[in-house]
Amino acid sequence: MGFSFLPREDDYFTFFSEMGEVIVKASEYLVEMVESDPKGYEAISAKIKKAEHACDDLTHKITTKLNKSFITPFDREDIYTLVVALDDVCDYIDAGARAIVMYDMQEVGVHAVGLAKVTRLLANEINSAVALLKKPNGMNKHIVEIHRLENEADDIYFRAIGELFQKETDPITLIKYKELYEILENATDRCESVANIIESIVLKHN
Amino acid sequence: MGFSFLPREDDYFTFFSEMGEVIVKASEYLVEMVESDPKGYEAISAKIKKAEHACDDLTHKITTKLNKSFITPFDREDIYTLVVALDDVCDYIDAGARAIVMYDMQEVGVHAVGLAKVTRLLANEINSAVALLKKPNGMNKHIVEIHRLENEADDIYFRAIGELFQKETDPITLIKYKELYEILENATDRCESVANIIESIVLKHN
Amino acid sequence: MGFSFLPREDDYFTFFSEMGEVIVKASEYLVEMVESDPKGYEAISAKIKKAEHACDDLTHKITTKLNKSFITPFDREDIYTLVVALDDVCDYIDAGARAIVMYDMQEVGVHAVGLAKVTRLLANEINSAVALLKKPNGMNKHIVEIHRLENEADDIYFRAIGELFQKETDPITLIKYKELYEILENATDRCESVANIIESIVLKHN
Repeated sequence: MGFSFLPREDDYFTFFSEMGEVIVKASEYLVEMVESDPKGYEAISAKIKKAEHACDDLTHKITTKLNKSFITPFDREDIYTLVVALDDVCDYIDAGARAIVMYDMQEVGVHAVGLAKVTRLLANEINSAVALLKKPNGMNKHIVEIHRLENEADDIYFRAIGELFQKETDPITLIKYKELYEILENATDRCESVANIIESIVLKHN
Repeated sequence: MGFSFLPREDDYFTFFSEMGEVIVKASEYLVEMVESDPKGYEAISAKIKKAEHACDDLTHKITTKLNKSFITPFDREDIYTLVVALDDVCDYIDAGARAIVMYDMQEVGVHAVGLAKVTRLLANEINSAVALLKKPNGMNKHIVEIHRLENEADDIYFRAIGELFQKETDPITLIKYKELYEILENATDRCESVANIIESIVLKHN
Repeated sequence: MGFSFLPREDDYFTFFSEMGEVIVKASEYLVEMVESDPKGYEAISAKIKKAEHACDDLTHKITTKLNKSFITPFDREDIYTLVVALDDVCDYIDAGARAIVMYDMQEVGVHAVGLAKVTRLLANEINSAVALLKKPNGMNKHIVEIHRLENEADDIYFRAIGELFQKETDPITLIKYKELYEILENATDRCESVANIIESIVLKHN
């Protein structure tokens, strides 16, 4: 496997790598948040929001470059789909943090911690995967690991919701947790979308 | 109306037909489930999950083939959009079954049965429609019927939600039903998306 | 900046302008509805549903034309994405109106009024923006204003949800408002998607 690109196309890879880094950072803040004392929620949430804005800016830079370029390292459409999917991951991490603040939650519970930790692992795999886009040797093990982690997240989500409906008797508390679990599960879903798009790009250029 | 394709392109039609069959099967299990005794929910849900995995595999086969092909029977983009929409139908059927199990529902009620039955009718129309993709004579009546059935599902959903908020006084029970109705209504929505995509493909090649 | 198109391609611009007008109308009805006496909800909701159908018809006309055209004023893919995003705005306005009726709400509260009014402002900006698609001089100020308004909507949403979870003790009432706020916030999100797509189209043709 091997690509060969013009220097100016390297910008795309640089931008993608930067997005990978930002997503890792956001996911680390998310774990920090769910393990923090509730007093710290708002400050950590603000850091995640900042990461989310950085991701938006990178998305904007990539799409602007895309609209101005005749030559792109891989299909225009694929670059666009990938950048949107990466941005979605960050959006969901931010939405999770935001929900915790909006709902004024006083603890997030073991399952949300579990989902946040899997999200962090996924973010690291995504970061490794986008860093390999230029020369995708060794890509496959990251793709496989992302699918494995997404299944793990899915299992946590299923158990979390089941337990919630079994044990929680206060409906408003139940609503808060249900929403939080759904957002975090969506974050992990989008990580899998990223893996699917990357797999598809690599296949085309193999 | 008529297409003419190379032998190797037939694979796409075969895969689409297989997806149609799997969706019909999943929808039949869904009806079986909503009409079953609650004791049977888990086992039937497992069968639906299996169908959903089969749909995932077919999606993967089609997108892999797509990434390796120079020649495709219709626009690459359309094939991709269609396969994702078909996969979504199966995903929502699975999500509905899963919700019933996760929420440990003891009955699903007449409206969920109604929505499941419309979904089964839609699945059969979709199956007929994808089978005609190669030679789309007679396609139109399936497209029309899908739109009609989706409207029917919409009416059931509207009534179901209205009644739920009128009669159900237990908030947690209300949450369960609201979610189930929404998932099933989403399944029927995605069936309409499939019809729109197919209509668009046929128009281009007319 | 300046495009030059063949006469027959003008149809696209006409259709987009018509969609812009319909969206403005739907957003005006929405404001009328949230400020109306509950007795008026159903009648106004029916007017919104009619606008939504008009939007569907225009979507269908544009996609049909697209599938029959060799020459399009800008990328086929972009036209399709734009029309779907415009249709989504109208769908969410309709979904908001519908929720008010389905949940038999007796008042919608100050935050829903605020979100409806921002949606109306956004609809007007969208209408101005699509009217400029043919000659995008002066486009930028509308794009900037849409982003500003979407941030405003986001702030209202955040406050609305926070207040709701702080003050509302009846879970079923809370569910109704939460859903309504989410739908309206989604409507404003889709307005921002429209702005992003338009910005991208203009950049390509600059």
